[in-house]
Amino acid sequence: MFLRNSWYVAAWDREVTRDLLSRVFLNEPVALYRKEDGTPVALEDRCCHRQLPLSMGKLEGDALRCGYHGLLFNSQGNCIEIPGQESVPPQARVRSFPLLERFNWVWIWMGDPAKADPALIPDWWWAGHPDWAFTRPDMIHVGCHYQLISDNVLDVTHLAYVHAGSIGSSSITEFAATVERDERLVRLTRWIKDRPPPPLYQKAGGFPGNVDRWQIVEHVPPCFSVNFAGCEDLKNRIELMALSAPTPETESSTHYFFGFVRNFGLRDADMENIFAIDMVKVFNEDFPVLEAQQRMLELKPAAPRIDIKVDAAPMAARRMLQAMIEKEGASPP
Amino acid sequence: MFLRNSWYVAAWDREVTRDLLSRVFLNEPVALYRKEDGTPVALEDRCCHRQLPLSMGKLEGDALRCGYHGLLFNSQGNCIEIPGQESVPPQARVRSFPLLERFNWVWIWMGDPAKADPALIPDWWWAGHPDWAFTRPDMIHVGCHYQLISDNVLDVTHLAYVHAGSIGSSSITEFAATVERDERLVRLTRWIKDRPPPPLYQKAGGFPGNVDRWQIVEHVPPCFSVNFAGCEDLKNRIELMALSAPTPETESSTHYFFGFVRNFGLRDADMENIFAIDMVKVFNEDFPVLEAQQRMLELKPAAPRIDIKVDAAPMAARRMLQAMIEKEGASPP
Amino acid sequence: MFLRNSWYVAAWDREVTRDLLSRVFLNEPVALYRKEDGTPVALEDRCCHRQLPLSMGKLEGDALRCGYHGLLFNSQGNCIEIPGQESVPPQARVRSFPLLERFNWVWIWMGDPAKADPALIPDWWWAGHPDWAFTRPDMIHVGCHYQLISDNVLDVTHLAYVHAGSIGSSSITEFAATVERDERLVRLTRWIKDRPPPPLYQKAGGFPGNVDRWQIVEHVPPCFSVNFAGCEDLKNRIELMALSAPTPETESSTHYFFGFVRNFGLRDADMENIFAIDMVKVFNEDFPVLEAQQRMLELKPAAPRIDIKVDAAPMAARRMLQAMIEKEGASPP
Repeated sequence: MFLRNSWYVAAWDREVTRDLLSRVFLNEPVALYRKEDGTPVALEDRCCHRQLPLSMGKLEGDALRCGYHGLLFNSQGNCIEIPGQESVPPQARVRSFPLLERFNWVWIWMGDPAKADPALIPDWWWAGHPDWAFTRPDMIHVGCHYQLISDNVLDVTHLAYVHAGSIGSSSITEFAATVERDERLVRLTRWIKDRPPPPLYQKAGGFPGNVDRWQIVEHVPPCFSVNFAGCEDLKNRIELMALSAPTPETESSTHYFFGFVRNFGLRDADMENIFAIDMVKVFNEDFPVLEAQQRMLELKPAAPRIDIKVDAAPMAARRMLQAMIEKEGASPP
Repeated sequence: MFLRNSWYVAAWDREVTRDLLSRVFLNEPVALYRKEDGTPVALEDRCCHRQLPLSMGKLEGDALRCGYHGLLFNSQGNCIEIPGQESVPPQARVRSFPLLERFNWVWIWMGDPAKADPALIPDWWWAGHPDWAFTRPDMIHVGCHYQLISDNVLDVTHLAYVHAGSIGSSSITEFAATVERDERLVRLTRWIKDRPPPPLYQKAGGFPGNVDRWQIVEHVPPCFSVNFAGCEDLKNRIELMALSAPTPETESSTHYFFGFVRNFGLRDADMENIFAIDMVKVFNEDFPVLEAQQRMLELKPAAPRIDIKVDAAPMAARRMLQAMIEKEGASPP
Repeated sequence: MFLRNSWYVAAWDREVTRDLLSRVFLNEPVALYRKEDGTPVALEDRCCHRQLPLSMGKLEGDALRCGYHGLLFNSQGNCIEIPGQESVPPQARVRSFPLLERFNWVWIWMGDPAKADPALIPDWWWAGHPDWAFTRPDMIHVGCHYQLISDNVLDVTHLAYVHAGSIGSSSITEFAATVERDERLVRLTRWIKDRPPPPLYQKAGGFPGNVDRWQIVEHVPPCFSVNFAGCEDLKNRIELMALSAPTPETESSTHYFFGFVRNFGLRDADMENIFAIDMVKVFNEDFPVLEAQQRMLELKPAAPRIDIKVDAAPMAARRMLQAMIEKEGASPP
């Protein structure tokens, strides 16, 4: 079950070009391309005639011609030409999906187009703002349900185990985390007060002594998370955020989009490499864990499981999403 | 669902030898070999004792000995020896399938042997006739339902799209096609009148001016098609046919046998290469399309689809086959 | 369906170390390791919290810490620490499986631990006894149901066909085999009287003339077989046994453990190679047959099959096991 009436990240803007891109979102095949004026287009990637993926066809201006029998579809998904016959029946159409470009991502709306409100895209204003650097790693395909990724992001205790060799720190669990929840947000907050800054923060901020440090995760269903991190003393403050947008491909696979923003070392190539290379490696440490977890869930779907204290935030997020999916399912289509 | 009471092409005659050949037809595993006098044999490829494929055994004269416990089967499928015991019970037998050799192919009858009438093999008399050249490319395994291949063969509009870079021609759809149907045949006919001959025809016939050209497809269920093509002026006439026999392996895979006959350039090596190499390349352009179509049909079996004018012939063929399968299913076994 | 209340071979003793070993038995994932004092441990390989295989975690002394959120399990499977919280709920535990080391194998009990009686391990006393050499080849993973392996071991007629190029001999079926059965044993006996010894026996025993030779297979459900072989004249006697313990991984795959014991050439390197290399090659001749048989059984699960005389022993073994499984299923859990 997926929440259909939501924006999802479909691609980095650089991935959508005049070459046809084929991707599956929420089990639906989608063909992505840009019109001649650069506007991105998303059509159902399955011809309404004999089901060939339209992404195997060819662009003709802003329209897309099927590679099998030559049906031509405009960028709204309406068939405008059928070779061998004069008229085109009105049911000759494929779905067209609303798209928006924001924060260097192309966002897609998989549900009722009438409900595609741009205001529902999370406000990640730092991405692209001149006072912030924005690191934009390639999308990673992960063989797990997208909620396992959100669980992972909403849980900072795993840093000490999964990331023990990189960013993990056993001091983390000394400090209690609080979980807040409102109608459309789960927030996990942990302050680590009056401690030496970790090496990256020290390198970035040059702090003379101890700092107060925070780890805050804000999660908005169905799948948007921001990990706020940083530290401060009385004179200085460094901030960074990890933006996380795992888009469901199927029930057991995910297109994982993520990026980093920071307010320090904006034009520092060494600092940029720390995010573009070292932090991507940290993210890659999670994927074998997530994929093993997925395999076990498939092997024994009914196995009992226990919940622990650190599950408070992920479970609140799951309940929130579940309620939204149920509400959507109950509403008239 | 398959039509069982029909001949199907099992192999090229050159493929059936004294080495055991294992193939699946209509979901049934079959072992093929030749007797010492050259007669081809087809037995169920599964020992009636402990299910080992008999193709893993060894020939002893005309008989086939299972590679596990040594049961020996004669070429009628009757077990004639069981190591370790004196007598052989009558139920110790495997199915034997009627075979016929014709047009360099070995044909197999998968249904009731009593109904295996040789007259039901299509009369492709050009194949092997001294006035005609016969090009016999290797069988190709295609990952799609065999009817998708028949649909493809019965549709000449796709030439302009799938084969745009090879034999396709946009002029094709300018001329209307007619569809005829009788009890056991669908015929699609298109005449392209008074036009310059395409390069191959020009090379073959040396026509001084325009020609009348035809494209005629005759399809006989369950899966036999002949594409007649050629052209003529008042003095000269060249003819070629593509013979098409896609044999179902499973519901989603096909052993595709095809060949070409022509009445020109019979001993011309360049002309032979055009068919043995270039035309096989053209056929290979279809398979990625057919396999993508199959994947989409499996992903969304219930997706709505529209029919267009050029579907008249394929749909007539499908209805004809469907009626034959239903009639067969309703008859006493 | 598996018999759960039984010992099975889980690993060679050399395979269970301070590195975590992950294996599936009877569809259950199991993590194997040794405590610091060398005692082997087997825990359910799936954390009770979020299902990560525990084998992806790390040993801390005798305990095992999950690689995701750091839950720590003692060697009885009880969680003894949950990072981020003070107390551990009693249901935070994973299954622990009884283990025993015997004959260089680690044996596991997959059923009710209260019934894990060491006396139920077959008495293969030759393995490790100073008067006998014990060859211990690596476990082989076979893609078939484990009973197909027992069928194979309980049937010596296949030697003439599957092993025709190695140890097979057509003289075998000249001599009748007898099958005996008691409550918990099937025994197949064949004596080959007053014949020349085969090359290996001749090499081992230096017999001047004919010998009496035996092939005896004793099978104990669910999956333990000993193939006794050897020969004697009035003065001399050589004996060897193949010990066979195929452990079910899933319904269609098996961890196959086997070994050889002999009472001759104990310190003879050439003789050892005959078992460690040549005899392992003979065993490898069976696996393609067993895996093809499995594929056919899956392709046509309902295909009729006939039984022959040599099936008496395997069928007796199957009936015995079936009765044990049914009895176990009927008993209160």
